[in-house]
Amino acid sequence: MKPSIPKGTRDFSPQEMVKRNFIFDTIKQVFQRYGYLPIETPAMENLSTLMGKYGEEGDKLIFKILNSGNPFSDFENEDLNSILHFMSNDVKTREASENFSQNNVKEFHENMSKLFQSTARKLTEKALKYDLTVPFARYVVQHQHEITFPFKRYQIQPVWRADRPQKGRYREFYQCDADVIGSNSLINEVELVQLIDDVFTKLNVPVLIKINNRKILSGIAEIIGEKDKIITITVAIDKLDKIGIDGVNKELLENGVSVDAIEKLQPLIAFQGSTIEKLNFLKGLLLSSEIGLKGIEEVEYIFKTADSLKLNTAEIELDITLARGLNYYTGAIFEVKANVGTLTSSICGGGRYDDLTGIFGLPNMSGVGISFGADRIYDVLNELNLFPESVAASTKLLFVTFGEAEQNYCLPLLAMVRKAGINSEIYPDANAKMKKQMSYADDKKIPFVVIVGGDEMANGLLSLKNMTSGEQEKISIDDIINKLIKKNNH
Amino acid sequence: MKPSIPKGTRDFSPQEMVKRNFIFDTIKQVFQRYGYLPIETPAMENLSTLMGKYGEEGDKLIFKILNSGNPFSDFENEDLNSILHFMSNDVKTREASENFSQNNVKEFHENMSKLFQSTARKLTEKALKYDLTVPFARYVVQHQHEITFPFKRYQIQPVWRADRPQKGRYREFYQCDADVIGSNSLINEVELVQLIDDVFTKLNVPVLIKINNRKILSGIAEIIGEKDKIITITVAIDKLDKIGIDGVNKELLENGVSVDAIEKLQPLIAFQGSTIEKLNFLKGLLLSSEIGLKGIEEVEYIFKTADSLKLNTAEIELDITLARGLNYYTGAIFEVKANVGTLTSSICGGGRYDDLTGIFGLPNMSGVGISFGADRIYDVLNELNLFPESVAASTKLLFVTFGEAEQNYCLPLLAMVRKAGINSEIYPDANAKMKKQMSYADDKKIPFVVIVGGDEMANGLLSLKNMTSGEQEKISIDDIINKLIKKNNH
Repeated sequence: MKPSIPKGTRDFSPQEMVKRNFIFDTIKQVFQRYGYLPIETPAMENLSTLMGKYGEEGDKLIFKILNSGNPFSDFENEDLNSILHFMSNDVKTREASENFSQNNVKEFHENMSKLFQSTARKLTEKALKYDLTVPFARYVVQHQHEITFPFKRYQIQPVWRADRPQKGRYREFYQCDADVIGSNSLINEVELVQLIDDVFTKLNVPVLIKINNRKILSGIAEIIGEKDKIITITVAIDKLDKIGIDGVNKELLENGVSVDAIEKLQPLIAFQGSTIEKLNFLKGLLLSSEIGLKGIEEVEYIFKTADSLKLNTAEIELDITLARGLNYYTGAIFEVKANVGTLTSSICGGGRYDDLTGIFGLPNMSGVGISFGADRIYDVLNELNLFPESVAASTKLLFVTFGEAEQNYCLPLLAMVRKAGINSEIYPDANAKMKKQMSYADDKKIPFVVIVGGDEMANGLLSLKNMTSGEQEKISIDDIINKLIKKNNH
Repeated sequence: MKPSIPKGTRDFSPQEMVKRNFIFDTIKQVFQRYGYLPIETPAMENLSTLMGKYGEEGDKLIFKILNSGNPFSDFENEDLNSILHFMSNDVKTREASENFSQNNVKEFHENMSKLFQSTARKLTEKALKYDLTVPFARYVVQHQHEITFPFKRYQIQPVWRADRPQKGRYREFYQCDADVIGSNSLINEVELVQLIDDVFTKLNVPVLIKINNRKILSGIAEIIGEKDKIITITVAIDKLDKIGIDGVNKELLENGVSVDAIEKLQPLIAFQGSTIEKLNFLKGLLLSSEIGLKGIEEVEYIFKTADSLKLNTAEIELDITLARGLNYYTGAIFEVKANVGTLTSSICGGGRYDDLTGIFGLPNMSGVGISFGADRIYDVLNELNLFPESVAASTKLLFVTFGEAEQNYCLPLLAMVRKAGINSEIYPDANAKMKKQMSYADDKKIPFVVIVGGDEMANGLLSLKNMTSGEQEKISIDDIINKLIKKNNH
């Protein structure tokens, strides 16, 4: 049987790894430039830490880990009784029939499933993390006495979701998050906008940063008379791109938002104009909503300050229909799209949350953060051929030899080259054919090859071949080192 | 309830992360210097890829992942019948008693456990990887047509083991592996010895590299008349450090090795002397064992070549009692111990395997590799205070302000400092007390602070405070940048 990996997961080859590391390193460098420091949390969290944090749909997508050893050894008498009671009834019902009909099978599945649900908490107590945000909140509460607030941390780690795999959606993928927690200042929002601008400027991808504020959405819900339906309204508007205005209206209606309220919502969703026009429109509309006006004030500050500081390449836009799916956002929300290429989904997003750590017992800790989608950024750079040339093979020099004497002659030279900081190799099998050794250099895209035979050993001048130009020269090992160091720094 | 993480797992704080990254970066740099290229494989592998590869004990320590959705939906009629049959008997037996006695409970556990074992393959099809070697073998076979052999790859990723957690032993930990596969040349072994020497020289840890060869152990098994018991003998000798010579002899006897053979083994285990004395002793002993003599020849080549190339700081030693636990080794084996500090366990190990990919259908692919134990290396460096000073906080400069006007004044200056490549921050809450802002700089070990009030804004000369010396000076932003760039490069 051909070996394989679980669906939705990936192997990364050396060629892919260098490109991925280029993205991670760029993001990491900018995070540090802004004073964010790295942390890591385990892949496995207690199931109780994760469950109930991602909504009903999210909870189902959490990968659970089977307890090690005998998972039934912790069962209590009480559990045994309830399981046995269930089984007893089930078995009795079936005893008449010698075998199972299709109906029996279905019913048995359902019963086993119920049984499974009720006993699952005994089978599994750990799960793979679903995102970096909830583990971060857990980290902050658990280590609150060691942390200096405001706490600026970044985290670049894989997360796992039992989603149906499809193009661009994986079951194991990396998130790159930066959050600052323990500060209400809107400066943090502005800095995140600058940070996004810096990352995508370095990556050569012009982007549009869409900004909105949950307080504005709350104000709108208030004004249209559906204050209690704020989550429903947010969830529906979040789907505008996918299902269109008719779809949004249908979903609102189905979820109990009044026809009158939906009617009032239409001009808002349809409104076009500059940021200033949008702000003026909102100011008129939300005049009587305290929270709405607060949201407008926050958005104005962010735009004014970001404008005065001048972004490098990013554009910013107020998008009144930007909602974002997650429930914990309470202030500014961000979403970033590439202004180039064919990818239409967002490549970065985030927002402010006022009480993320409250679920773990530490209330009143406001924070704001963003998350870069490394896989999607990879797709954008790949499509547009934006990976720099230098992000290529690591080895700079290969020693090609014609036998054991030559190999032995080369070993101390190889050590010198490496000591000079040049990534280099010797073809390990001394008796391999020249052609084989050269095609190894070709396949690995090694730019220079040293060929050593009897002549070279006799006079100490080695044959250096430039694999790109095909040029070949006789040259001493010292000159080879100098030449390659210069290339390295070039 | 106080939030926590699963036992045997760890959070890493920013202070720990920079130290860990220093180790990973050093190892990575040397791997690349020797022509190894990075790959990554998923955390999750198919259970069938992992099971049966780590011996009976190892298999039990694999973390299994529960199938998502309803894990019972795949059950076939056949399974249902066998489960029902089992349950039916079980329930009938118990129906007399209204409740369970302790005996009932125990028996029920056992039965449920049996049932669980037999149905487990339906509950779980994926598992967390247990090491990097088996996934690497799977990778090589799966991607054999895209790979240029000999294939030199490195991999730095976490692995998971359901071991009992204890000091220095975790359930989630990183391995740092380098392997070359598709080459028989002993040059690879020599290069790995050099590579180990380079890594620990860079880390300032003097080490002892113990070397042996499985072929010598096979020769010994042959000579003492227990050729078939080679695995038993290897496993027992591997425990010499832990259980002593009496323990080893006892285990050999219990596993059917003859008294006569054990007798013959004693002088070998006890033999002391230089590498040359050991080799001479072995040559006499293994005169009639072809495989034994081959092993001696290989060891001699490795020692001779490594000696002629001169290692930087590592010592190498032939250890006839070095066995290593894993069954797949067939040639050279390595184990590295620190010559300083209190840690006695090995911090790096590896060896040659002739047929690792055979289990996945690609025979005759000889390879050799090593694995660095990052956690243990961390402990050694920490104990001996060997982390360099520069491995410290990332932020170099903090802007401390007395109000919103000052903060606004500082924002463009901050952008300039960052553009110059200096990691820097502004305290986000403009109205925070001076003392609070200064203690933030102290806690984060930020070396320089810029203090900006009315005076500074008026004349453009900022107050720069050196947090180490306490010195303070009035200085322009350009001079601050020049000063810190010089510091950065220092």
